[in-house]
Amino acid sequence: MPDAVPAFVWVEALTGPGAHVTLDETAAHHVARVCRARVGDSVTATDGRGASATCRVARLTPQVSLEVQSIERIERSRTGVVLCGAPEGQRFDWVVEKLAELGIARIRPIACERGPWPRAAVRPDRWKRLAVAALEQSRGRFLVEVEAPMELEPALDAEGTPEVGILADPEGVAPGAVRPSARQATVGVVGPASGFSGGEKALLQDRGFTAMSLADSRLRTETAALAWAAWWAASR
Amino acid sequence: MPDAVPAFVWVEALTGPGAHVTLDETAAHHVARVCRARVGDSVTATDGRGASATCRVARLTPQVSLEVQSIERIERSRTGVVLCGAPEGQRFDWVVEKLAELGIARIRPIACERGPWPRAAVRPDRWKRLAVAALEQSRGRFLVEVEAPMELEPALDAEGTPEVGILADPEGVAPGAVRPSARQATVGVVGPASGFSGGEKALLQDRGFTAMSLADSRLRTETAALAWAAWWAASR
Repeated sequence: MPDAVPAFVWVEALTGPGAHVTLDETAAHHVARVCRARVGDSVTATDGRGASATCRVARLTPQVSLEVQSIERIERSRTGVVLCGAPEGQRFDWVVEKLAELGIARIRPIACERGPWPRAAVRPDRWKRLAVAALEQSRGRFLVEVEAPMELEPALDAEGTPEVGILADPEGVAPGAVRPSARQATVGVVGPASGFSGGEKALLQDRGFTAMSLADSRLRTETAALAWAAWWAASR
Repeated sequence: MPDAVPAFVWVEALTGPGAHVTLDETAAHHVARVCRARVGDSVTATDGRGASATCRVARLTPQVSLEVQSIERIERSRTGVVLCGAPEGQRFDWVVEKLAELGIARIRPIACERGPWPRAAVRPDRWKRLAVAALEQSRGRFLVEVEAPMELEPALDAEGTPEVGILADPEGVAPGAVRPSARQATVGVVGPASGFSGGEKALLQDRGFTAMSLADSRLRTETAALAWAAWWAASR
């Protein structure tokens, strides 16, 4: 029984109309097994970079492939970026999932004085899979990019000077006092489970980051990342 | 090695000064084992209803008890309440944990037409434990209350008419158009994983709930509950 709503999948690249796209294992499973699509059925595909294509199933064996019938592309109207210290345990998994749902464009794990990123905790393949699943779940057009961990200072260098940069900090100003950028990237920085050092806070201040308090109490790293992203998503 | 910061525990009731409080198993473990407190050491206790007490450890055996030295009590300055449909799987666990961190006062699970609360998914003891852990982690003074599930209409009857009532809805107005109540309860309603029925949406509209869109895309139940709470926490 195919869904009333066409299956929705992420693919690495989209061209067309007329082009054929071979699905990877995950997308093929979703289309052929979960949605039980047949040859000729409609499927919507995105490349996670703004394109949305109406496709039909061209083949189911030996691999599932789609034929692009029409394609349209949009640009992001604004961009939210989160630099995030290491939370406890496996909680970064759901930072990726939830920030993807909320429409954050990029997440950069940052290694901090009081919170390194243990090598075993860096799981780019898993993060990519979670990001794709969240994109498909919300039928979005933009795939969150989870970058490789960097130390704080090089990460800030890599960002350049954001138009609006915000440090999540229980002692900061109320969110009503800050407006995200309507056009350029708004960059949020969230400390690791043990917090930023004094030197790191001073560095962020030097770079023009505004300390902003997201709630009345101190939040865990993953909660602060999510609250920041929710604030950004709500500030339209 | 005791922490520089005194241990922080939730207890059912606080009176004093001079009163003795026997700790339950969880709090006793935290004080005696995790913080390795000794007789005479300082411990901070809250009753989760606004009281904060400076105590000293009076005894470690046979049970850990504290003697209250000073106590002060504050009132909540404002109240956020969330009525939440059933999310997928075990995700309500972290709705409780995250809404507790963000300072929500009460959570009411609501059984909906497209999303009942299976009896096995109703776990009040577990929810209470998660709420207490979140309170202690954030050293807060107010314990979130997780109520028994109700159907939507009786749940709305039980709330009465909120000064500000908000329905999380992808087709609603932007959050900038809505202000939470500064004095009375602000009530947020979040649908179950499969969404509200048309009849339920009409009921909420009749009861004066404003539909508000928390993000550009459709959010999962648990993400919407958290984004709503983050919006509420940020709107000070």
